[in-house]
Amino acid sequence: MSKTVAILTGGGDCPGLNAVIRGVVRSANQKGWRVLGIEDGFDGIIEGIKVRELNRKSVSGILQRGGTILGTSNRGNPLNYPVEKDGEIHWLDVSDKVIENFNQIGAEALIAVGGDGTLKIAQHLYELGLNVIGIPKTIDNDLKSTDVTFGYNTAVGVVTEALDRLHTTAESHHRVMVVEVMGRNAGWIALESGIAGGADVILLPEIPYSIGHVCAAIDKRRERGGKFSIVVVAEGAFPADGEVVVKVGKGESKGEVERLGGIGQYVADQISACTAMEVRTVVLGHLQRGGSPSPFDRILGSRFGVKAVDLIEQGQFGEMVSLRGRAVISTTIADAVGALNLVDPEGELVVAAEKLGIMVGR
Amino acid sequence: MSKTVAILTGGGDCPGLNAVIRGVVRSANQKGWRVLGIEDGFDGIIEGIKVRELNRKSVSGILQRGGTILGTSNRGNPLNYPVEKDGEIHWLDVSDKVIENFNQIGAEALIAVGGDGTLKIAQHLYELGLNVIGIPKTIDNDLKSTDVTFGYNTAVGVVTEALDRLHTTAESHHRVMVVEVMGRNAGWIALESGIAGGADVILLPEIPYSIGHVCAAIDKRRERGGKFSIVVVAEGAFPADGEVVVKVGKGESKGEVERLGGIGQYVADQISACTAMEVRTVVLGHLQRGGSPSPFDRILGSRFGVKAVDLIEQGQFGEMVSLRGRAVISTTIADAVGALNLVDPEGELVVAAEKLGIMVGR
Amino acid sequence: MSKTVAILTGGGDCPGLNAVIRGVVRSANQKGWRVLGIEDGFDGIIEGIKVRELNRKSVSGILQRGGTILGTSNRGNPLNYPVEKDGEIHWLDVSDKVIENFNQIGAEALIAVGGDGTLKIAQHLYELGLNVIGIPKTIDNDLKSTDVTFGYNTAVGVVTEALDRLHTTAESHHRVMVVEVMGRNAGWIALESGIAGGADVILLPEIPYSIGHVCAAIDKRRERGGKFSIVVVAEGAFPADGEVVVKVGKGESKGEVERLGGIGQYVADQISACTAMEVRTVVLGHLQRGGSPSPFDRILGSRFGVKAVDLIEQGQFGEMVSLRGRAVISTTIADAVGALNLVDPEGELVVAAEKLGIMVGR
Amino acid sequence: MSKTVAILTGGGDCPGLNAVIRGVVRSANQKGWRVLGIEDGFDGIIEGIKVRELNRKSVSGILQRGGTILGTSNRGNPLNYPVEKDGEIHWLDVSDKVIENFNQIGAEALIAVGGDGTLKIAQHLYELGLNVIGIPKTIDNDLKSTDVTFGYNTAVGVVTEALDRLHTTAESHHRVMVVEVMGRNAGWIALESGIAGGADVILLPEIPYSIGHVCAAIDKRRERGGKFSIVVVAEGAFPADGEVVVKVGKGESKGEVERLGGIGQYVADQISACTAMEVRTVVLGHLQRGGSPSPFDRILGSRFGVKAVDLIEQGQFGEMVSLRGRAVISTTIADAVGALNLVDPEGELVVAAEKLGIMVGR
Repeated sequence: MSKTVAILTGGGDCPGLNAVIRGVVRSANQKGWRVLGIEDGFDGIIEGIKVRELNRKSVSGILQRGGTILGTSNRGNPLNYPVEKDGEIHWLDVSDKVIENFNQIGAEALIAVGGDGTLKIAQHLYELGLNVIGIPKTIDNDLKSTDVTFGYNTAVGVVTEALDRLHTTAESHHRVMVVEVMGRNAGWIALESGIAGGADVILLPEIPYSIGHVCAAIDKRRERGGKFSIVVVAEGAFPADGEVVVKVGKGESKGEVERLGGIGQYVADQISACTAMEVRTVVLGHLQRGGSPSPFDRILGSRFGVKAVDLIEQGQFGEMVSLRGRAVISTTIADAVGALNLVDPEGELVVAAEKLGIMVGR
Repeated sequence: MSKTVAILTGGGDCPGLNAVIRGVVRSANQKGWRVLGIEDGFDGIIEGIKVRELNRKSVSGILQRGGTILGTSNRGNPLNYPVEKDGEIHWLDVSDKVIENFNQIGAEALIAVGGDGTLKIAQHLYELGLNVIGIPKTIDNDLKSTDVTFGYNTAVGVVTEALDRLHTTAESHHRVMVVEVMGRNAGWIALESGIAGGADVILLPEIPYSIGHVCAAIDKRRERGGKFSIVVVAEGAFPADGEVVVKVGKGESKGEVERLGGIGQYVADQISACTAMEVRTVVLGHLQRGGSPSPFDRILGSRFGVKAVDLIEQGQFGEMVSLRGRAVISTTIADAVGALNLVDPEGELVVAAEKLGIMVGR
Repeated sequence: MSKTVAILTGGGDCPGLNAVIRGVVRSANQKGWRVLGIEDGFDGIIEGIKVRELNRKSVSGILQRGGTILGTSNRGNPLNYPVEKDGEIHWLDVSDKVIENFNQIGAEALIAVGGDGTLKIAQHLYELGLNVIGIPKTIDNDLKSTDVTFGYNTAVGVVTEALDRLHTTAESHHRVMVVEVMGRNAGWIALESGIAGGADVILLPEIPYSIGHVCAAIDKRRERGGKFSIVVVAEGAFPADGEVVVKVGKGESKGEVERLGGIGQYVADQISACTAMEVRTVVLGHLQRGGSPSPFDRILGSRFGVKAVDLIEQGQFGEMVSLRGRAVISTTIADAVGALNLVDPEGELVVAAEKLGIMVGR
Repeated sequence: MSKTVAILTGGGDCPGLNAVIRGVVRSANQKGWRVLGIEDGFDGIIEGIKVRELNRKSVSGILQRGGTILGTSNRGNPLNYPVEKDGEIHWLDVSDKVIENFNQIGAEALIAVGGDGTLKIAQHLYELGLNVIGIPKTIDNDLKSTDVTFGYNTAVGVVTEALDRLHTTAESHHRVMVVEVMGRNAGWIALESGIAGGADVILLPEIPYSIGHVCAAIDKRRERGGKFSIVVVAEGAFPADGEVVVKVGKGESKGEVERLGGIGQYVADQISACTAMEVRTVVLGHLQRGGSPSPFDRILGSRFGVKAVDLIEQGQFGEMVSLRGRAVISTTIADAVGALNLVDPEGELVVAAEKLGIMVGR
């Protein structure tokens, strides 16, 4: 039976989103279904209806492109949406509006691709009766409901390439390079790219660390003939000591860290003060989100897209696709939201890093 | 207790070998052990003893380099080694010589890094009393004893990048590009890079195919407006039909295929004959083995090296390191050799590829 | 005064063609002109009229993409075009048809982007009264009328990257790697990528060489401790000696070389016979044309596009854009065609390569 | 006649330095000369003598590596060197010490590779009687004495790749991305990578600009349907207007700009204030110096090294190698120092950029 399905992408962009969209379109088209692309995330179905039909031709050539051809939301959350009224901004739940507009476009199901925030909205809309399928997306790889998310592998590649570059300059100048990478709650990017890029110190949100220990590790390395050091710091990794003690936790720390110029700058300043070495900082920022997805992310994105269409065919709404081992399976969105996939401080990966001689927090 | 361990790399080179060597050296050194590097695989312990001590300095900067700093064997197999005697070459088992020479270098254990061939030798030497630990290596990812081997991910990256390049030229000229990739018994590289690189047809050793069906798929694609097609062929993927029927199986087919100029050229010639399209062939060959390892391969190689040292410390000789899910574990070498990890023709990955509209053999 | 200009791309594809198209469109649009894109080279104006309007939106995102969004010709030459008549193919001059069709699309000028063949056609059409501007394109960099052409720099980058990869595998296995690259008449790609990629031997069409000398160079290198060698061969570089003497010159040699499996395979077989080393061949082929253009080629292509529009504005038809030193200038197409830019065997670049210890032919 | 020559690398590191060193060593060795490498720039010949012999083996594999195997100076200038005396730091001219130590190592000539600072020192030492040859180095390409310097091409490649990445994220989120790149006095990197990376606005030190005009350009682009904008800012490009007027000139402006968080952050804040768009900043910093040199830089570095050895052979001391057109020539160091190669605001490159629709300052 022919169907019409819609797809939107929400939250921060992530390499592999276009592979998902292409996977949905190609696999749905093959079943004889129509696919509608909603532009700019939930924004595209709240303020007017920005929808266009997608077919094989519209997804041609996008597999290798970063970003999302559908755009993503800027305002974002329909559960708490800025509505102007009487010259003032009110933050309202506009879920009804979303469902009302969605019903107008004539689609039987919605595939919502996004992170924890988008999935929470998807779950809410599902509870309100919408036929929703979720596809998880987080570049930090911090969602518990899937072994790994697309985008993460590409980000690790970008950071590792940057570390390769910085190695030669650190070595030539006998410097400490402090590299700040993404990872507000989970330090996967810092940990994996740090191991792959030959870092000497890796600082994660999950493992408290002392600036004093970092300096000691750098000094010890220099005494053994290491003329330079590479320090990788996740943006959410705060020290347990130092001039300013920064509390872990989104709210309070963020402002404090920004005042310090970012955690990378803060750590660099501290190292500069407690060792005799020259220190430089690089903040990779948005570079980590951009560019052509790695083969892994293209394949995972494609499989997630295919699986989402399968779930619609089977009527398994309220479910979310997920990777477990080598298999793409599904789980309920309700179970998935809110649970974080954190680095285990005593896990084999951290222990292996330490056996390689890397200081991993502490 | 201080130990001395030796390491050698055998068989074809593979990105990630240097990460293994570095992982062994750094983790052994941290325990206060010495590490000896045997040069040129088993050759370096048969004809004289080519051994050098490795330390942190000798492995500095090698994590990101392809190949192996130890070199690998050219003659290779000590169980069937070419020995000149009375002006003739005799093929002899020189295992005793290996053990005798090994005992002279003063190492308590040998880490042998290699493919199925090297692991069989390692098992034989273990049965003769040598303290052997195995580390599996195959760029084709065709070993059953581990979920994945280092080098494979890099090879998929190289092939995908090549497919990206060939896409633009195929598109501009409305051509069929046939790309021959590695994979004598297992089609993993063809399958994964084919999906990631947006191939239209993927031909694997595990799934018989008909040249007629390939031509039909290409014609159908052209009728739908696709002006070009990308065909990925594993070197061991032989058609079930065609002018010349090539039997699957190493011995007989190989000569036949070489006579035809390789399977890529053969498939290209057939497509050229049965469609109206211009066809070009590219054989990626040794490009797939070379270059800087991907982050994944650097991490996996490093973890394998660390684990091998742990196994020596625990006295678990005759074991081999292995990846299962996210965990690095060990298994007996005896269990590991000979069993192939093949693509499942009915597995989820092949089915997903087909749902994306890719012809996967058949 | 508003104008309408048309653009087509002919001959083999080349990274930077899209930069040219984008440069023409953006700069013409800024003057208030319309731009028409003719599809598939001269084919698109011979058999029917395949034309579409191009604007800023249609060229958005193409700067970094290889190939040409306009497609290129397969049959090609309007001066010698295959026309079916009475069941037979006749090769006819269809220039009148081209001009007739061109006049129908309502454009005042034609920008023809292509190599020597395309430029000859352009000159012929100009002599027949068409307002033609030429833009030179050759990936081999073998046109005398411009210091350098776009695409060449990208090709050198692709080959150098391949040589970097092959170095590690050659080194690990103590092998000779023979790499066949583009360059039928001119050896620029072989020479520059050979120097950049650390080749030991570079063989060019411009400098005769002896297989015996190649083998001597490789043997000498091995005696000095070099365990491997990298040989770069341009596809048009033929030896002056060897088992089979291949005459230089397009016609006769090409068939001979193809019989031998390409010059790369031939040289490899010879080296294998006259040294004790294992030899492997890689033919880079179409990989050299594909992929994202280098920054240099994007800039040069963009400038060429801008300049072509300027020439139209100034009414300088029959001219061709060209790079001289750092300046983009113009010259007559008539002067440009037919003259080859060859490597000077006694020039500074060849001499510098020799002083670096590289054997460059001879 | 056999000679001994010494080489040192000074100032900021630059891709291609290792190609220079390798070129010097291979070409000198071929003449039968010895080469001594002085470590850490002039530091290595002031405080003790840190020198090691370099031969073909020590430069094997370095062609493709960034940085400098010799290290570079941290304290730097022998004309104004920090010397501790009576517990205080005095800044003294230690040229005599340099010459005295140099005479001890037994080299007949010194090749000094470095930027304007290093070349000034080289000239001073030459005037004091040392046999000096200069090799120019500046990643900004701001030396007038040579058409182009090695390292610059690689830096443009790094920035262009970053712009490619940021494009997709800017596009998905409808953002303005402000990218701060190197270029204190000269805007070459910003200009060329901006054109190659498809920037919408390029801000250079050489062309004054108004923040108001930048905002107008971005707004105009949005009105025409461009959902995002890319702004490239050289670190030394200061606005002529804005809340804070920053004076051009090293001394005063630098502190001011640092107070504002760098010029990139300042421009981003201003755009955020005067347009309705979301703005993000990326500072590429040290990423631009690192990593494997491009083929162009490897070739240019190699040729410079070869030429420096030729100049020594010819006894042309006090000279500096240089690229003019396609030829490597020499000029006196005295003529070379101090003269800057700046972007010509009315030059063809800037005009071409403007015709492409890019706002280049103003």
